[in-house]
Amino acid sequence: MIADITQNERAPLTEDCLRKLDAYWRAANYLSVGQLYLCDNPLLDEPLKIEHIKKMQLGHWGTTPGQNFIYTHLNRLINRYDLHMLYVSGPGHGGPAVVAGTYLEGTYSEIYPEVTQDKAGMKKLFKQFSFPGGISSHASPQTPGSMHEGGELGYSLSHAFGAALDNPDLIVACVVGDGEAETGPLATAWHSNKFLNPLTDGAVLPILHLNGYKISNPTLLARLPHDELEQLFQGYGYSPIFVEGSEPELMHQPMAAALEQSIHYLKQIKYNAKEHPGIERPRWPMIILRSPKGWTGPKVVDGKKIEGTFRSHQIPLTVSSTSGNHLQMLESWMKSYRPEELFDANGTLNRDIAEIAPKGDRRMGANPNANGGLLLKDLRLPDFRQYAVSVTAPGIAGEGDVHVSGRFLRDVITLNPKNFRVFGPDETVSNKLEAVFEVTSRQWNARVEANDEYLAAAGRVMEMLSEHQCEGWLEGYLLTGRHGVFNCYEAFIHIVDSMFNQHAKWLKLTREIPWRRKIASLNILLTSTVWRQDHNGFTHQDPGFIDHVINKKSEIVRVYLPPDSNCLLSVMDHCLRSSHYVNVMIAGKHPSPQWLNMNDAVNHCTRGIGIWDWASNDKDCEPDVVMACCGDVPTLETLAAVSILRENLPDLKIRVINVVDLLKLERKSEHPHGLTDHDFDALFTTNKPVIFAFHGYPWLIHRLTYNRANNSNIHVRGYKEEGTITTSFDMTVLNEMDRFHLAIDVIDRVHIPGSKGVYLKQKLMDKLIEHKQFIYTHGEDMPEIRDWQWEG
Amino acid sequence: MIADITQNERAPLTEDCLRKLDAYWRAANYLSVGQLYLCDNPLLDEPLKIEHIKKMQLGHWGTTPGQNFIYTHLNRLINRYDLHMLYVSGPGHGGPAVVAGTYLEGTYSEIYPEVTQDKAGMKKLFKQFSFPGGISSHASPQTPGSMHEGGELGYSLSHAFGAALDNPDLIVACVVGDGEAETGPLATAWHSNKFLNPLTDGAVLPILHLNGYKISNPTLLARLPHDELEQLFQGYGYSPIFVEGSEPELMHQPMAAALEQSIHYLKQIKYNAKEHPGIERPRWPMIILRSPKGWTGPKVVDGKKIEGTFRSHQIPLTVSSTSGNHLQMLESWMKSYRPEELFDANGTLNRDIAEIAPKGDRRMGANPNANGGLLLKDLRLPDFRQYAVSVTAPGIAGEGDVHVSGRFLRDVITLNPKNFRVFGPDETVSNKLEAVFEVTSRQWNARVEANDEYLAAAGRVMEMLSEHQCEGWLEGYLLTGRHGVFNCYEAFIHIVDSMFNQHAKWLKLTREIPWRRKIASLNILLTSTVWRQDHNGFTHQDPGFIDHVINKKSEIVRVYLPPDSNCLLSVMDHCLRSSHYVNVMIAGKHPSPQWLNMNDAVNHCTRGIGIWDWASNDKDCEPDVVMACCGDVPTLETLAAVSILRENLPDLKIRVINVVDLLKLERKSEHPHGLTDHDFDALFTTNKPVIFAFHGYPWLIHRLTYNRANNSNIHVRGYKEEGTITTSFDMTVLNEMDRFHLAIDVIDRVHIPGSKGVYLKQKLMDKLIEHKQFIYTHGEDMPEIRDWQWEG
Repeated sequence: MIADITQNERAPLTEDCLRKLDAYWRAANYLSVGQLYLCDNPLLDEPLKIEHIKKMQLGHWGTTPGQNFIYTHLNRLINRYDLHMLYVSGPGHGGPAVVAGTYLEGTYSEIYPEVTQDKAGMKKLFKQFSFPGGISSHASPQTPGSMHEGGELGYSLSHAFGAALDNPDLIVACVVGDGEAETGPLATAWHSNKFLNPLTDGAVLPILHLNGYKISNPTLLARLPHDELEQLFQGYGYSPIFVEGSEPELMHQPMAAALEQSIHYLKQIKYNAKEHPGIERPRWPMIILRSPKGWTGPKVVDGKKIEGTFRSHQIPLTVSSTSGNHLQMLESWMKSYRPEELFDANGTLNRDIAEIAPKGDRRMGANPNANGGLLLKDLRLPDFRQYAVSVTAPGIAGEGDVHVSGRFLRDVITLNPKNFRVFGPDETVSNKLEAVFEVTSRQWNARVEANDEYLAAAGRVMEMLSEHQCEGWLEGYLLTGRHGVFNCYEAFIHIVDSMFNQHAKWLKLTREIPWRRKIASLNILLTSTVWRQDHNGFTHQDPGFIDHVINKKSEIVRVYLPPDSNCLLSVMDHCLRSSHYVNVMIAGKHPSPQWLNMNDAVNHCTRGIGIWDWASNDKDCEPDVVMACCGDVPTLETLAAVSILRENLPDLKIRVINVVDLLKLERKSEHPHGLTDHDFDALFTTNKPVIFAFHGYPWLIHRLTYNRANNSNIHVRGYKEEGTITTSFDMTVLNEMDRFHLAIDVIDRVHIPGSKGVYLKQKLMDKLIEHKQFIYTHGEDMPEIRDWQWEG
Repeated sequence: MIADITQNERAPLTEDCLRKLDAYWRAANYLSVGQLYLCDNPLLDEPLKIEHIKKMQLGHWGTTPGQNFIYTHLNRLINRYDLHMLYVSGPGHGGPAVVAGTYLEGTYSEIYPEVTQDKAGMKKLFKQFSFPGGISSHASPQTPGSMHEGGELGYSLSHAFGAALDNPDLIVACVVGDGEAETGPLATAWHSNKFLNPLTDGAVLPILHLNGYKISNPTLLARLPHDELEQLFQGYGYSPIFVEGSEPELMHQPMAAALEQSIHYLKQIKYNAKEHPGIERPRWPMIILRSPKGWTGPKVVDGKKIEGTFRSHQIPLTVSSTSGNHLQMLESWMKSYRPEELFDANGTLNRDIAEIAPKGDRRMGANPNANGGLLLKDLRLPDFRQYAVSVTAPGIAGEGDVHVSGRFLRDVITLNPKNFRVFGPDETVSNKLEAVFEVTSRQWNARVEANDEYLAAAGRVMEMLSEHQCEGWLEGYLLTGRHGVFNCYEAFIHIVDSMFNQHAKWLKLTREIPWRRKIASLNILLTSTVWRQDHNGFTHQDPGFIDHVINKKSEIVRVYLPPDSNCLLSVMDHCLRSSHYVNVMIAGKHPSPQWLNMNDAVNHCTRGIGIWDWASNDKDCEPDVVMACCGDVPTLETLAAVSILRENLPDLKIRVINVVDLLKLERKSEHPHGLTDHDFDALFTTNKPVIFAFHGYPWLIHRLTYNRANNSNIHVRGYKEEGTITTSFDMTVLNEMDRFHLAIDVIDRVHIPGSKGVYLKQKLMDKLIEHKQFIYTHGEDMPEIRDWQWEG
């Protein structure tokens, strides 16, 4: 189907072009070595002395020359075909390459005007690298052209595919390190090609860089026999093109030819998709570049082979006043790039070599997709109020909070057909967002069979049974200026704890960099929660993502636990409008009682925390007890407990507080949403018992409130890691967060005159026994539990 | 290299054997459907009525018949070749199959005598499934023969390979679901075959079960063209053997043939490894079984196709009083297995069919590897005291705490050559455990080249750049009764947060199950910590794993932060001796000061927390301030602050407390290691300021101490998510945990008569400015910081 390239294209470079390409590459290598080592004498105008050398030499040479080689060749390709290309640097610590590449093309100096394209600027460029107050050793947020840092390995390819979605004119060149290729997330990310739509999406050109070594081990992929390696990537659905060798001068033509062939393939794929609708899934091209680790660097140091071994991973040659001839070796190494042929006396790249770089926005360092906020358009949002469920009285039956918000998301999809997607690991229907399939499908470019549902070549829902892929795709999509929601089972969001970390760090840093524009928030909708995984059991029960999230910068993280459908609608609308946060929304998907009409829900969510007057009876007086709740099930159990108490102990003054915005509980000084002590005390009192039913691990509430005046009276119930297959109510009993335990907690903490309290406590304890007996016999909850309704 | 099987072996089953196999499979399917639906009338002695049906039908049919098919055929294979085989059920919710399989072979009734192999037992077997007080829907800890639950998907193959290590006679049959195969961890786990040693390890026989669907999507692998799928697994290094079809009677011969061929291959691989040392890495066999999801179940329900579609994932047919003919359909379905041919009137499996099951320990449900504690042998440990570093006075220079413990681990390896391994993602040398390579190598069965270091076909160190694989292999190794340590960069341990969750849940549950024996602890050694990732930058800085860990059951989790080399030795010895915990050890790898000689270290670690008298000056009086520290860098900065304070404010009474065992801070009621309030107050006082320098996120200390008397006076410094490439000391400055800030914290909180305090504070603030200026100029810390030494 894909024709081969002609013989002519096997050596596509003219002599002149080859010379310039090689010079450009040498310039990039020179600048990279300079970054690793020099704090002065950047052009080697004078003999290299120890005082020109950084005392701490920190950085990674190993991956750098290969990436410089790739970046240089991509530049030529962009120029030849006027490509719109984004560069993703997958291997760890490839910073020197991307910095050198963007410096040579001019984008670096445009963003950092003090780093001029001359000797003075070069000196700054060198000194700042891996230096206090300077820049990091990765393609970090500070690096122009980068939307992927790669400090933690494994996500480059998912990011690349996420960036390509809905960007039909974009080619994402994604360099995948052979170390990173061993990670799980990367190993499954190759399958992203079964989702990409050649008509409506851009292309990803993976360049697997086999430089053979990690920190101290060989890489697996580099040690596969050629045929096995080829089979693997053919099996992954690619047409691999090999470029292999170590002689620099012999590698340019094959690399150029491979890139020509790739573009040829990509154009053909696009053409076929347009002209032959329904044509089978294309075999996308990829390049497998096998080149020595630390290529062009020192061959042997102190008798040990460096180039082409793991020893070139970081600093291949340590230079100090006691390192013998290493200083001379460094000088020879740097001079091997013949800087005098590359830069003029002023330190500026020679004009004819500079021609290799693309112009304007075609430069990879200037691609606006790498600073996605530049491209960000606000979502067109329907009025979320129109999806409100009617709540004529608190406690009426609902149809599932997430289910209701599915209709809102459905219309968000309709109104934003090109810059909003929903991601989920095969759970979008299970999570009750099935309304979205009224207007769209899951994007899927593998084979379709009878009885499949909601699959199409183009669709707004991305589903693969890999939380890593969902998160990685979405991050790539957001980082390039679009919007989205990730829906996930609550317990399994921990699979991407580490990806969340890195994204939150990226958001924190880009927030502090003036030229970086804000991107859309990462919206994570967690459902199928701990309290309603009674049928899936203990493995599916873990509400700890909140604990993980709130360790990150308070400017970045937001956590919402809407108690009902209208609140979830209000919260979701808010999250979709926000930017540069990670919003975690935790909500139920099962039918459960509704509490607030839409007006009250908006007011409640706007405040984030508040007294529910209709459930409280402490009007115009001090309460005897505060019953606080956060999360849908804790709210239900709290209100059930309140109704038990009010019926049996009518003199007890109870204040009911509901928390939607969890970080309201923190001090104002700790989180921008935090309540002042004054406001907190006004709600929770300074001396009354507080029985707090919380969705997650109970200690989290203590961590948030340890420094409040009433701290010692706050008694929290939550998930304490007790679970199994049982009824949904029994899940709360196992963790002592059920209505009976909550009511007993009150009795235990409030002075109740007479014997009423003692009597009620005994009755509630009997209820707990009765409950156990009932479920062991009938396998379901007692009717009085199942059918319980709030009677206001 | 591997000869083909003969024509005869393509249909290896005799008529009689085929009949029995099919009957056995039907029996397993019958028992599986029974588990999903019935609470009574298990043999269908009377017409099925609605009162025989569970009200809540919870469970998963989709994967079950395929797994029953596999389990049945493996039984035959075991008998024929007298195999020692372990069954790993990868697909989610395969519980009914493993329960049915172990019930039929008798192991279930041996472990649960009340579940007899008769009608009464069968009724119990059915009712307990997914029922309150009963058993889970996975191959859970309650299930005989299971060492892998599979509630969270992706780890079956890593577990299988971990189980096979050092078990040369074992074959681990690992059923991999095609849904789970989409996860990252599973996608890279296929590469485990590059590590297995055919001579000294067992074999893994992966059986990729392509039943085509997940919850509501098709699976990717099932939709690959045949040649692409074959290429993929050949590229992964396997010899895939395909078994494809949907007609039950036509599938037995091909499946039997595929298994015969697999055993043939495995025997040849073992033979070759023995007879031809150095022979190239074998292509291990695997089976790709393509069979319909929900095989043999209802074909069409309410006009929708069920068998062979995603709709058979869970309950294919809901039965209730209002479900029309579903009750009859269920009855027909169950009768289609012809129970009357399978069980006698008493409900016991007919004797001739029962012959299919292996005997004794050969039964997969009785394999002791699935209850690894049965096989657990204590480690032979050298006396850790002999590795002590000499600490003639506190503060003398060290060589790196982890580095020292490497020599201990080296000798643990020597003393335990077959049941102890070290796992790490390419970081064992980087983490300074290089001493282990004096006695062993990394196990590696891919190609070796000149300049590789420490690679061998058999070795005790397992390294792959995948934290998932390291953790998964180690879990598999531990679960089958062996010991190990996982060494990892601190920040990237979050990659396996979710795996830790599941392992901790497994430990919690198995602890409560009488027939389960305790296994060795999961020992996680975290180094390259947040405070010493100054050169790798912000992406490598995250100490939050502790926060994640301590949400799990206190009976299971232990967290240690030894402040120096001798303490780490003592802690490591303790952890290696322990069982059924997750031990997290956090220690530095860089040269840093040493505080305690071995005797003092042992005493200190045994207590877990204590006053360091030699650093304190509050003897025989109440302190003015308590300076607490936990972690190596916090200890260093605290002692430096103490020395500043004692020099400048000699009248100030300072008590220095060091915490090794973090959970000492919790209340005794919350954690078995927790201090009583009395002991806590004796250390921290009830009313003096406490300046606490903590290795991790500072809020964690508040979460642990919120309910202590002195709570409101505890002021914690720790990592507050500020980081970059900078000097190591500057990392503490960025987070205000450096000696100057700590000393200022004291001055701000303690009444210091006269102007000495004000004067010192100003001096310290000047120091901070001087520090910044120095590092921005010189790129390294001021000599007075670098060369600082405690002078007692």
